[in-house]
Amino acid sequence: MADDSFYMKQALAEAARAAERGEVPVGAVVVCRDRILARAHNLTETLHDVTAHAEMQALTAAANSLGAKYLTDCTLYVTVEPCVMCAGAIAWSQVGRLVFGAEDEKRGYQRYAPQALHPKTVVVKGVLADECAGLMKDFFRKRR
Amino acid sequence: MADDSFYMKQALAEAARAAERGEVPVGAVVVCRDRILARAHNLTETLHDVTAHAEMQALTAAANSLGAKYLTDCTLYVTVEPCVMCAGAIAWSQVGRLVFGAEDEKRGYQRYAPQALHPKTVVVKGVLADECAGLMKDFFRKRR
Repeated sequence: MADDSFYMKQALAEAARAAERGEVPVGAVVVCRDRILARAHNLTETLHDVTAHAEMQALTAAANSLGAKYLTDCTLYVTVEPCVMCAGAIAWSQVGRLVFGAEDEKRGYQRYAPQALHPKTVVVKGVLADECAGLMKDFFRKRR
Repeated sequence: MADDSFYMKQALAEAARAAERGEVPVGAVVVCRDRILARAHNLTETLHDVTAHAEMQALTAAANSLGAKYLTDCTLYVTVEPCVMCAGAIAWSQVGRLVFGAEDEKRGYQRYAPQALHPKTVVVKGVLADECAGLMKDFFRKRR
């Protein structure tokens, strides 16, 4: 769990970078055997691309780094509960572990597609949840 | 419906291109006011990227072509029922109409995430379904 906090802090740093450029602050990292394979943050506004979520980019970059499609030995850390799209991508990638911070009651996969993940993917929730949620709340408060 | 068949044939041509290069044969086109904005086929093997489904690429390319994130005036034609990931992306894009050919009982969004699409998206199923399913069956038969 100490490791989970450490890597979630890296994902939080990515989320902070997203906020700096006016993006909804979600960050992700993919870790394989104590090595960070990919770091990414949400870029939907910058790229005018609704699919450019942090998780999607991190999965693509990690697979590219490994030269393999499947991420069975990897952990994906993401600051906010993945949406349905990202949960579907996590399933296709066969990510070994998914660790997320804050839950997303409105858009999270748990509400709309609770069976979307691969059955072998281990899910850990709530790591640094307050910090992860705090970044989101600050962002939307400033936007109003 | 004549138009829907016409554009589905374009998506089928993309699916055939996928099959030629050893990819699971799914094709997609995005149409806006009788103009094809994007054509794509599945490239997951070629790119070693599980997110490189035909729909994902077509949505990204269409948004890029329009310079806008939302595809409310567009129709997405896809030869096979979208998976959960693609349904999530279609929702984020706010695609006006989704037209698909063959249903996918194992991996389609209707089974795992029937509420995943945007509530305003109109769905039309079964256009050239036999041709769309036939390409898939031929592909998997040859692979065995």
